[in-house]
Amino acid sequence: MRCSMADFLTLQPVAALLEKIRALSPVADETVALDSALGRVLAFPFLAPEDVPGFSRSTMDGFAVRAKDSFGASEGAPALLECIGECPMGRRSELAVNPGQAARIWTGGMLPANADAVIMLEYSRQAGEALVEFTRPVAPLENVIQKGEDAGEGEILLPAGRVLRPQEIGLLAALGQKTVSVRRKPKVAVISSGDEIVPVDARPAPGQVRDINSYTLTTLVRTAGGESRSFGIAGDDENDLDARMREALGWADVLLLSGGSSAGRRDYTLKAFSRFPDVAILAHGVAISPGKPLIMARKGTQMLWGLPGHAASALVCAEVFIRPLLRRLLGQEEPAVDAAIVHAVLSRPVPSVQGRRDYIRVLLVPPAEAGGLPVARPVLGKSGLITTLVEANALVVCHEDLEGFAEGEIVAAHLLF
Amino acid sequence: MRCSMADFLTLQPVAALLEKIRALSPVADETVALDSALGRVLAFPFLAPEDVPGFSRSTMDGFAVRAKDSFGASEGAPALLECIGECPMGRRSELAVNPGQAARIWTGGMLPANADAVIMLEYSRQAGEALVEFTRPVAPLENVIQKGEDAGEGEILLPAGRVLRPQEIGLLAALGQKTVSVRRKPKVAVISSGDEIVPVDARPAPGQVRDINSYTLTTLVRTAGGESRSFGIAGDDENDLDARMREALGWADVLLLSGGSSAGRRDYTLKAFSRFPDVAILAHGVAISPGKPLIMARKGTQMLWGLPGHAASALVCAEVFIRPLLRRLLGQEEPAVDAAIVHAVLSRPVPSVQGRRDYIRVLLVPPAEAGGLPVARPVLGKSGLITTLVEANALVVCHEDLEGFAEGEIVAAHLLF
Repeated sequence: MRCSMADFLTLQPVAALLEKIRALSPVADETVALDSALGRVLAFPFLAPEDVPGFSRSTMDGFAVRAKDSFGASEGAPALLECIGECPMGRRSELAVNPGQAARIWTGGMLPANADAVIMLEYSRQAGEALVEFTRPVAPLENVIQKGEDAGEGEILLPAGRVLRPQEIGLLAALGQKTVSVRRKPKVAVISSGDEIVPVDARPAPGQVRDINSYTLTTLVRTAGGESRSFGIAGDDENDLDARMREALGWADVLLLSGGSSAGRRDYTLKAFSRFPDVAILAHGVAISPGKPLIMARKGTQMLWGLPGHAASALVCAEVFIRPLLRRLLGQEEPAVDAAIVHAVLSRPVPSVQGRRDYIRVLLVPPAEAGGLPVARPVLGKSGLITTLVEANALVVCHEDLEGFAEGEIVAAHLLF
Repeated sequence: MRCSMADFLTLQPVAALLEKIRALSPVADETVALDSALGRVLAFPFLAPEDVPGFSRSTMDGFAVRAKDSFGASEGAPALLECIGECPMGRRSELAVNPGQAARIWTGGMLPANADAVIMLEYSRQAGEALVEFTRPVAPLENVIQKGEDAGEGEILLPAGRVLRPQEIGLLAALGQKTVSVRRKPKVAVISSGDEIVPVDARPAPGQVRDINSYTLTTLVRTAGGESRSFGIAGDDENDLDARMREALGWADVLLLSGGSSAGRRDYTLKAFSRFPDVAILAHGVAISPGKPLIMARKGTQMLWGLPGHAASALVCAEVFIRPLLRRLLGQEEPAVDAAIVHAVLSRPVPSVQGRRDYIRVLLVPPAEAGGLPVARPVLGKSGLITTLVEANALVVCHEDLEGFAEGEIVAAHLLF
């Protein structure tokens, strides 16, 4: 049997696996301090807890007036009003603006009693110790935000699933939220396997290589909003691997086991998964390149993945399946526009096989001529090369119904951050 | 004087400030553990410390052979070789492949003595207990990576200034780097000012608003690779502000003071900066909207910025000036293609003023018809509204020589992450 041939995989389409991912439920929520909520995913819709703003205020530096007093004002026939003082910032003004009067006001200041509009500083001229001329009229409510105009109490301001950017954090601060309910970070355990893999600080003997996937996969998970932990390197030893898997599954929502899934060794990962009780194999073999021998399995609510050992292939599979898996576990909303898609011109033909979805690693470079589309150069080289790992900045997808791309064809490139 | 008029600013072009930023020097380097180096910026070029790979190895699952033995092989006339065993993973094989022989090998395995190529499993057929037929020839070195082929010792593998993605972390792991030299994170202090500003957990009295900028600016700095710290809220009180600024400048590389720079109050920030010894005002007023009264100053190697008090305006100015400032302080390389630029169709006309650079906040939404460009909808609304803060997902730049954009015009939108 030492020279036995490979048996054949029943390949599932990429879309079938993505469909299974979409069927999963998000993880639980937790409460975090607002100043550490950057990049987290909102667990519930956020409703305005109060009227916003809570008082009518000026949107300009200028003068609070009764709009009627400015009607008809022009450069040639300015309106002359008495300046009765300045509205303080941060508290209610004692002033009341009566007909023929104006009060100095700053941006954000609360409107004094009886005023219903603000004339911008630019359209004012001092005309005496306490007299101001205005060269333009204002309409009632001009340059003013009324109480509750921004949002009424109970209005939905942020949907569940929103990723919190500085802007959202600012909105939550404005509405007095010191803490916020977000999805907890999905926990992803990473194990590298293979007798030839040694730790990063070891000096590899002939035939050995250092562990790459523990580093690439744990860091990729972090860029996707997950928490990750490496459970080390398992040699081709069942007991060692099982012990690491048991430890990992005691902690994780998701287990990524890389290596052992190349054609010759995939039974190793499959058998390892199958040795655990209650594991259902959801896919064994996917119509994808790279990554064909991929394994997707489930143990209760935990997801187990057998990824390629080769670093670039493992990263592509993680982009294709693990990033969407984390989006789903985080209950993240779909972006209005996929910011990660850039159109580019392919620099050379790329063949593909019908019925398989190919992910082509490319380097996007600036357009050949100003205003043109960027150029996508396929990153070539033997699949074992390590230096090509860092050359690509995007993936181009060649769908199942295509036989590849021609040189000069316009393709959609998915950016790798 | 209580009704005094604004004096006029000498407006500098946006490009002049960016030029001053480009003239700054990067911050110092520090050494961090590889598994916490994600997103950090490489301080020095990284050279291959050894030949990569350190041994010749297979890139396929198959059989190690002497290529010559396969010449002429075809489906009809396969080459018949003796299978002498299997090459182990992770160590040197004891096998030597003599003429007429083949050895089973896995992807990544070290080539046995005398073998110079690998025939893929797919082109092999078992033909007896220890006999294998091959239906295709291979050339010498086919499916093999030779020692040193990936990179020779001393070759530059990563340039200084590279942001470390999972891929770069993987490359460094492959080459045995447990630690890596990166630029330290630039330290950015944030102070909000204004008598009307209260902390996020306070219940604002009439005329007061909660502090937004401490949250938006500290988090934006983090997304740009900096370390940030809030030094609280300064009322319109010189002593309090000076004390906070002194504390901030004892720690920070960059100070962001927001508020107090609107037309009526900008003297406040300008005077505050000028009260400190050795402060040079580099710009006071910029031909930009929003953000015209912006102040840029320098105190030795420390940069001081007076930003608008209005949250959306402060964020725009931070995108335009503070993000590039951090890129420069980190010594970050320019990306080959600016991934943050998306072309879109403007949904309505936007007027602008010649001689001023306008940053228009827009919401990008999917194309009206499949395959078209996304649509950019300007986010309108009075400038004091808080809810519009979260609506935009991109900025459209209207340059100084334009008078605005027409409806349907194609614009470049800079994504806000």
